[in-house]
Amino acid sequence: MTKGQETRDKIIAQAARVFNQYGFAGASLSDLMQATGLQKGGIYRHFRSKEELAVAAFDYAFTIVDHLRFETIDPELGSIEQLKQFIANFVERRSSIPGGCPVWNTAVDADDGNLVLRDRAQQAVETWLTRLVTIIEGGIRDGEINSEVEPSGLATLLIASLEGALVMSRLTQKTEPLAQVAQYLNELLELRRMSCLNSSHDNLYLQKEEK
Amino acid sequence: MTKGQETRDKIIAQAARVFNQYGFAGASLSDLMQATGLQKGGIYRHFRSKEELAVAAFDYAFTIVDHLRFETIDPELGSIEQLKQFIANFVERRSSIPGGCPVWNTAVDADDGNLVLRDRAQQAVETWLTRLVTIIEGGIRDGEINSEVEPSGLATLLIASLEGALVMSRLTQKTEPLAQVAQYLNELLELRRMSCLNSSHDNLYLQKEEK
Repeated sequence: MTKGQETRDKIIAQAARVFNQYGFAGASLSDLMQATGLQKGGIYRHFRSKEELAVAAFDYAFTIVDHLRFETIDPELGSIEQLKQFIANFVERRSSIPGGCPVWNTAVDADDGNLVLRDRAQQAVETWLTRLVTIIEGGIRDGEINSEVEPSGLATLLIASLEGALVMSRLTQKTEPLAQVAQYLNELLELRRMSCLNSSHDNLYLQKEEK
Repeated sequence: MTKGQETRDKIIAQAARVFNQYGFAGASLSDLMQATGLQKGGIYRHFRSKEELAVAAFDYAFTIVDHLRFETIDPELGSIEQLKQFIANFVERRSSIPGGCPVWNTAVDADDGNLVLRDRAQQAVETWLTRLVTIIEGGIRDGEINSEVEPSGLATLLIASLEGALVMSRLTQKTEPLAQVAQYLNELLELRRMSCLNSSHDNLYLQKEEK
């Protein structure tokens, strides 16, 4: 890695902390200079614009939070266990970048703001939805998840409620909102488990009749 | 109302649109001047600081969104119907102030930012949680809602998931996320209805034994 690339990477890592806390418009040049320890010229030698730096910072922050939430999910596990691992990761594993979830911050910050960042946030949410939908569809195919479950709806509920609870936990500086929502989601997943149906009264009755 | 109060109210209404879209740090003086049609002096004759204006704008925006979500809930209805009305209001009734939910925007914007606004957002969330908890506790007392339901957890789930879905709907410019989450919440409420338990196999069995 060249010295220039090294400096560029350091700027991105520091800028990610600034943008994630203060937003795109809220992050001032002096915030960025203070965080990186560089002058304006030192920063803009590596990036054509504040937007280019913010997009690089978003991509860096997304990679970190994406790994935290998905990398430890074992694809050998059953689909419901994989979804529960996603929920647990969301509750327990916090990114080293202060300011909360960079995807959600950018989604809220950029929905009336920078269009390139808005696109990035949208792509990030789509990536997570697709990963969860793939796990849920696998569970339906394997007969583990009730086939009446609509994969996109369940994936949306998981992301919306956990991200919403994270905002509430950060606002109140309490862990309860995340813990309460995680408990509801885990219970809801158990109710979608096919074995849950198999042990119901109707099915026991059916099995007895078959004998 | 004096001319001065009238001008002050007009500034607040216009500033609320600016702050709700761009955030506290992101809203520039020129944005505020353009929105109000006033010069800097004309605005700051009525407010000591940007913070004082932003707080007045938040209070104004909160009143509007609070009415939209709660005013049409009929306290004569059963508690589950009241909660369903809250969900429907959230999905269907949008505020005239562009930029999404002012409480959520301020929560995300101010969690690393302005402390007065952060307090305002926290109070707003607490107000909503308390209203929902009161409805849920009433339902448990009246025997309509299963007494195993933890009121604070259910209230948190309702707010977190609906606010999260609103962010997703705004980001993707699609209604699906809100509709999908609303459907899950309505189903979940039905499962907490006591009459649902009363018609279950176990209770039918019990009733037969009692005969």
